[in-house]
Amino acid sequence: MTERRPDGPWVVTGGAGAIGSVLVERQLREGRTIEVLDNFSTGRTDQLPAGSSARQLRVTTCDLGRAAPPLEVFRGATELWHFAANADVRRGAEDPQLDLANGTIATAHVLEAARRADVRRVVFSSSSAVYGQASVLPTPETYGPLEPQSLYGAAKLASEGMVAAYAHTYGMTTYIFRFANIIDGRMRHGILYDLFEKLRRDPSRLDVLGDGTQAKSYLRTEDCVAGMLLASDRTHDPVQHFNLGADDQSSVREIAEKVVAAHGGTAKIVYSGGQRGWVGDVPRQRLSIAKMRSLGWAPSVTSHGAIDRTIAELLARAPVDPAGTGR
Amino acid sequence: MTERRPDGPWVVTGGAGAIGSVLVERQLREGRTIEVLDNFSTGRTDQLPAGSSARQLRVTTCDLGRAAPPLEVFRGATELWHFAANADVRRGAEDPQLDLANGTIATAHVLEAARRADVRRVVFSSSSAVYGQASVLPTPETYGPLEPQSLYGAAKLASEGMVAAYAHTYGMTTYIFRFANIIDGRMRHGILYDLFEKLRRDPSRLDVLGDGTQAKSYLRTEDCVAGMLLASDRTHDPVQHFNLGADDQSSVREIAEKVVAAHGGTAKIVYSGGQRGWVGDVPRQRLSIAKMRSLGWAPSVTSHGAIDRTIAELLARAPVDPAGTGR
Repeated sequence: MTERRPDGPWVVTGGAGAIGSVLVERQLREGRTIEVLDNFSTGRTDQLPAGSSARQLRVTTCDLGRAAPPLEVFRGATELWHFAANADVRRGAEDPQLDLANGTIATAHVLEAARRADVRRVVFSSSSAVYGQASVLPTPETYGPLEPQSLYGAAKLASEGMVAAYAHTYGMTTYIFRFANIIDGRMRHGILYDLFEKLRRDPSRLDVLGDGTQAKSYLRTEDCVAGMLLASDRTHDPVQHFNLGADDQSSVREIAEKVVAAHGGTAKIVYSGGQRGWVGDVPRQRLSIAKMRSLGWAPSVTSHGAIDRTIAELLARAPVDPAGTGR
Repeated sequence: MTERRPDGPWVVTGGAGAIGSVLVERQLREGRTIEVLDNFSTGRTDQLPAGSSARQLRVTTCDLGRAAPPLEVFRGATELWHFAANADVRRGAEDPQLDLANGTIATAHVLEAARRADVRRVVFSSSSAVYGQASVLPTPETYGPLEPQSLYGAAKLASEGMVAAYAHTYGMTTYIFRFANIIDGRMRHGILYDLFEKLRRDPSRLDVLGDGTQAKSYLRTEDCVAGMLLASDRTHDPVQHFNLGADDQSSVREIAEKVVAAHGGTAKIVYSGGQRGWVGDVPRQRLSIAKMRSLGWAPSVTSHGAIDRTIAELLARAPVDPAGTGR
């Protein structure tokens, strides 16, 4: 059992990504030294906080799916926060190597670096995708058997297993967080971003994957990161699994209608049909968050509220032009 | 859903190994054509049935952890039976690459070959190691969260996830069998073989890892293979998990005492102490076999009976020399 050191430097993989960068920003504000590892495939330099001193924030470009990271990045660190992964679940079906490399092998590389550098605390961002289409909703952390439907989910499950094995074999304290759909207005992927992009291209028509009945929980990035920080501060078993989501869920139809309303309500919504949005999609997802709640965490907004807040942010960032005349 | 074709050729990875070779032998007897893939690290040519025609049994030497297998081996096959893996759980702690390569990556390679060659049925030999030290005994297939303690268990869990994802993404029918300790007198690893080897070296003293209280279920190889054949013949969902074990369990102390008794009863048993035999060892393992029983399968002997039968086989193969004078 290794407790958090308030002043310990952290390695954050995917630290320039949508979720990792929120953690990095928050920890820099608290005065913590951060080593970011990112391949900048979806991570963006402009997501990293500007104005940090080079002493407090170091950024190393590194493709963890191809090569082991430099060990010096890990030396002296007290925690590894591992966010780096392929972010596009759909692409895995076309390229089965993608998640194996950027998910499974990347995790093997960072765990091995942590072991060699004696980093004893590991926080891993897993996914509700490990459950596949669960027969129990809301799904608790104890649900089994785990039956991922996508290669993305398979790589998350593979990573969970390695985290657990490293914890038991080499004496680490580890935290596995299974995320619902994490959203905010800075993201450049996910359903809300995709729908906004489609309306930008054609304001008269919104093509939506599936029949609109798919229903999932959405959680704001800031709530997700707050939950990870809280749980990893308060618990100290070798291996711990936590769901991070909302109590309610939002259907694709509701989301599409909200996005259209936010754009003036004129676009026609056209569903592609079928229960699934794409091969590997899980039509119904809702995680039990009772375990996180028992630690004192709760999402600051419902799933519906998370969507509303994110739509507001996307609108603020991308001024709407309902006439579709361009800018 | 793809049902078994009685005459379809099978690819069997690890087909020269302890369990795969028993399947191969049985299927050759039924007239099936078998393509064996093995790296012969622990597989042995003498375990493959002699006298099979080259048309019915083809053997390709291939290290699946290093390279993709030749696609022509998979062409025309109707099923993939994937047994190949590192067989030495303990070595994984010293060499974390071992199970990643020979477990996880090997599975990725064979699944991808099966997909490309349109092999739609996959049978995978997983392990009770995916559970880690379960808090529920006997442990059902629905137990979670899965918390492997060894890198071997992590690689089995990673492979399970990939099998499930391939099933859902590419339309395969798959079977995941989680094995208890599978034993017979031909094996060249495992507790019985190890204890026999120790007594052969020093008939006066038997060093045993742990304090002797570790207790697990043992199942005969022929019962294991029979169970796999039955379940994969009778069920046809995309992904199915089955435990294969016995209803009872046997402690290390009982096994050591039986082995000593079989050698004349004179050797002194010396326990190394500690709850675990080694790092990554799971001290207590007993699987619920209710799901397999519901299909009509049952082990032909208890765990105790499996040990007795195996000791008898080992004695028949290695004539005892209680005086320790060597031969």
